[in-house]
Amino acid sequence: MANVFPRGAPLTYPDSVVARAGWHMGDTSAPIGPESWQATCRAADCAVAAAEAVLAGAPAAYALCRPPGHHTGAEVAAGHCLLNVSAIAAAHLRGAHDRVAVLDIDVHHGNGTQEIFYDRSDVLTLSVHAETRAYYPFFTGYAEETGTGAGAGFNLNLPMPRTTRDDAWIAAIEAGLARVADFAPGALVVSLGLDAHENDPLQGMKITFDGFRRAGRLIAGSGLPAVIVQEGGYLSPDPATALEAFLSGVMAPGAG
Amino acid sequence: MANVFPRGAPLTYPDSVVARAGWHMGDTSAPIGPESWQATCRAADCAVAAAEAVLAGAPAAYALCRPPGHHTGAEVAAGHCLLNVSAIAAAHLRGAHDRVAVLDIDVHHGNGTQEIFYDRSDVLTLSVHAETRAYYPFFTGYAEETGTGAGAGFNLNLPMPRTTRDDAWIAAIEAGLARVADFAPGALVVSLGLDAHENDPLQGMKITFDGFRRAGRLIAGSGLPAVIVQEGGYLSPDPATALEAFLSGVMAPGAG
Repeated sequence: MANVFPRGAPLTYPDSVVARAGWHMGDTSAPIGPESWQATCRAADCAVAAAEAVLAGAPAAYALCRPPGHHTGAEVAAGHCLLNVSAIAAAHLRGAHDRVAVLDIDVHHGNGTQEIFYDRSDVLTLSVHAETRAYYPFFTGYAEETGTGAGAGFNLNLPMPRTTRDDAWIAAIEAGLARVADFAPGALVVSLGLDAHENDPLQGMKITFDGFRRAGRLIAGSGLPAVIVQEGGYLSPDPATALEAFLSGVMAPGAG
Repeated sequence: MANVFPRGAPLTYPDSVVARAGWHMGDTSAPIGPESWQATCRAADCAVAAAEAVLAGAPAAYALCRPPGHHTGAEVAAGHCLLNVSAIAAAHLRGAHDRVAVLDIDVHHGNGTQEIFYDRSDVLTLSVHAETRAYYPFFTGYAEETGTGAGAGFNLNLPMPRTTRDDAWIAAIEAGLARVADFAPGALVVSLGLDAHENDPLQGMKITFDGFRRAGRLIAGSGLPAVIVQEGGYLSPDPATALEAFLSGVMAPGAG
């Protein structure tokens, strides 16, 4: 049966499983199969284990999560994401720290993470991404989205042109990290997409392997305990090379 | 490319045609092809011509519109509907009358028509339909949806069990017409679905051909000039027979 999505108001939560599927799916690219629940729970476990490692004293830990999570909001899955594993890691860290920051450098806006923490001042969310006017997730990711209520001022979007190369990307990450330093969180979650790479088929940005190395170096240079959660980038021809470059930067922290 | 639908807030209207398609489609069952615009404009023309006939003195006029329209709101198409032709007919009649009513007896809730006039007191909207908790359009169609702002009290939903037979259906239409009489409109639009029929494959209700005849008789018996707009029912094995029964009732007005 065709997908059916709730729009407008007033809306009532229905009984039908078809309608509930539409209610909880933000688009048609996050289908749910028999193994989906187990897979996304394992991904969340993986992110929590990385958070535990950081809470136990590791300067950084990397969680190779599949499926990714950053497009999923509190009750709506979308964009190949089911549970929002970065948000779950942030919530876990929040149990031990008064303030936690999430820096999303996936080429797509981290709209789910933004939505989950949009009205909160204890979790700062930042996203550096390709501008969304003509790029997924389209409807959010704009600079004017800065949070609401108690969360006003605690969301920072840094949309960038699709022609963005290493220097501009690194400068944006640097600006994000400056905001993070102001916020002084106890720990940082990095939503790591590898899809900003210049060879990624979706062509959101033009970042090189060296750009990923510099990003890793800069983030580790912040001195914050960091939980690095794998988000997108699996369509790139060389995700492992991009990851290796990023992690080599993390292991040699510095000024990017 | 997969459909992408806006959810949550804040939302920005995007440039991408893919994203705009998602913005303006409420589900995946109102696709748009090269001929769609012409078809839906012709359907609207047909409904307006019927309204003109009624404004010129005809007691009733029937518009065989394709595609139908009652699931389409002000900016969102859905459920095989593109332009909301019943709403367009009502707006046209509204140019000549202070008050217009729309009575929707399609087996599916007329959610688009409800949405369009939800905050207005000059167009009374009523819908008699199969209860939507497990039936399209799922998220709306509940009795507690009665209008908002100036429109509070000017929307009436009469959801009915999927076991509904002729007598109960006719009683609901009678209740709807009593509300219409209170409202004293200058003209009536009837959103006519034939899919309440007992042989309809979607099995929303169990109405017989004689039930449709009685409905037509009752509506014409209201004495209001009526623009009858064809909505759903095209999956039934005998839509023409159901239509003939309804129109035979219209031509012999009475107490149903």
